[in-house]
Amino acid sequence: MATMMTDNEDQGAIMEDRKARAATWFECLRDQICEAFEKLESDYRGPLSDRPAGRFERKRWKRDAAAHETGDTGGGEMSIMRGRVFEKVGVNISTVYGQFAEPFNKQIPGAEEDPRFWASGISLVAHMRSPLVPAVHMNTRMIVTSKSWFGGGADLTPTFPDEADTKTFHSALKAACDAHDDSYYPRFKEWCDTYFFLPHRNEMRGVGGIFYDQLNSGDWEEDFSFTRDVGRAFNDVYPALVRNHMDKEWTDAEREALLVKRGRYAEFNLVYDRGTKFGLQTGGNIDAILMSLPPEAKWP
Amino acid sequence: MATMMTDNEDQGAIMEDRKARAATWFECLRDQICEAFEKLESDYRGPLSDRPAGRFERKRWKRDAAAHETGDTGGGEMSIMRGRVFEKVGVNISTVYGQFAEPFNKQIPGAEEDPRFWASGISLVAHMRSPLVPAVHMNTRMIVTSKSWFGGGADLTPTFPDEADTKTFHSALKAACDAHDDSYYPRFKEWCDTYFFLPHRNEMRGVGGIFYDQLNSGDWEEDFSFTRDVGRAFNDVYPALVRNHMDKEWTDAEREALLVKRGRYAEFNLVYDRGTKFGLQTGGNIDAILMSLPPEAKWP
Repeated sequence: MATMMTDNEDQGAIMEDRKARAATWFECLRDQICEAFEKLESDYRGPLSDRPAGRFERKRWKRDAAAHETGDTGGGEMSIMRGRVFEKVGVNISTVYGQFAEPFNKQIPGAEEDPRFWASGISLVAHMRSPLVPAVHMNTRMIVTSKSWFGGGADLTPTFPDEADTKTFHSALKAACDAHDDSYYPRFKEWCDTYFFLPHRNEMRGVGGIFYDQLNSGDWEEDFSFTRDVGRAFNDVYPALVRNHMDKEWTDAEREALLVKRGRYAEFNLVYDRGTKFGLQTGGNIDAILMSLPPEAKWP
Repeated sequence: MATMMTDNEDQGAIMEDRKARAATWFECLRDQICEAFEKLESDYRGPLSDRPAGRFERKRWKRDAAAHETGDTGGGEMSIMRGRVFEKVGVNISTVYGQFAEPFNKQIPGAEEDPRFWASGISLVAHMRSPLVPAVHMNTRMIVTSKSWFGGGADLTPTFPDEADTKTFHSALKAACDAHDDSYYPRFKEWCDTYFFLPHRNEMRGVGGIFYDQLNSGDWEEDFSFTRDVGRAFNDVYPALVRNHMDKEWTDAEREALLVKRGRYAEFNLVYDRGTKFGLQTGGNIDAILMSLPPEAKWP
């Protein structure tokens, strides 16, 4: 019995250490991405270069405890930039914990037995001024209930899909996947295609990427390493894609097409996105949840 | 037995006659509204009066039968105008019929016993160019399953609520209600306030109006008369409100506020609106369902 206690304590300490390492990573990745994006703003020589280079603004928030929760329930930090390359980009990190209320505990693996949860992650959506630069979404997270797992992914939404860009983006994510498990890329690419799809329009939101959830291979170090590699791959490939296109001139008609494409993006996020729905239903931070919505959109 | 048959046949003939009269009314109201709105376009003397007056364009559509349905399943007609007063207004009429698939038959009164349905109605959403002219929504419909009822309502969404306008709009709807049943206005006003509400922002979509559903007092003629009076009240009061404000100058800041308000409108329609969800899930006409979305919106 004494040994059992010690084992449990050890397990508890190991998990606390893992949580802390994951949360630290998400924060570190956030800093790297914000730096890379600000550099793009500085280096920009395109049609709007008479405007000042954008800079991120940070805003911390605390999670409101639900009626059945007590004490500190965590919070997060939003980083928003409204620049000349990035029309609106949000890079959110959050670490929240508490107890799921019914009926959500039934929807979350491991939460029906014990409603306590801990979740930390980074979530990013970038809407670009130029219709020639694709919008992008990236998110990775670690969740702990009576189980624990990683989830995340990244996907690209160009207004005018460019085969070379699509290939570059997918290749970077494939390399991150292949370094860990040959089955990851085909599975996670397929998952992304299935997830980021608008049934009512029978069209994909963008040109895909990867999406994974409930990843627990039994080797936490390995899964955490994979999740870090996804973040790194994103931060290598996306700024490079932006740089390739950001200085080009665009037409009013191209901008108009971007605004219509963004309407589809808003439709997806408000009608289908699980994270958005979950956030709205569980009283998450509205500004952080809806930061993904486009700065301007049209349904002409 | 012979008498029973005759009674059933009579009942059937009576219901067919009622359906035809309701569908005819919705079409007639559509014509009256379109005429009133085009007249506003013609009479406009405001800041955009160098542009041509808008005119409605009509487009018929046929409903796609679901896999379990056969034969003609009805359709509708969209009327869209993109004008100088009305930035985008859709006035849709439709008469559709067929059989509800599971699980929708369980959500519709009278459809679990017999999945056949018939529905006819008019639905209107107007997004205005001027931030000083309120947006509006109006919808009335008759539904027949093994039961039959009317539903509908009208509500106003100003960017800058004006007490006099709100009072005028509500008074017109109250008069229509009071002519039929003193309990209607307080109940239907409350229903509207509860329905057009964004819980995630803890704010109303607009300044309300009336909303009613499953109205069957036992006197079809009376219920139909009430539904016609709601349509007439709308067509009296809204064009008058538009006329009061349409010629005024507005500022860029006011226009910006309008675009943000429209973002909320899109959020409501995509996240909460039952008609939109129902349409998207049951394979309705996408263009008609999403005609309610604003021509331009911002989430700055």
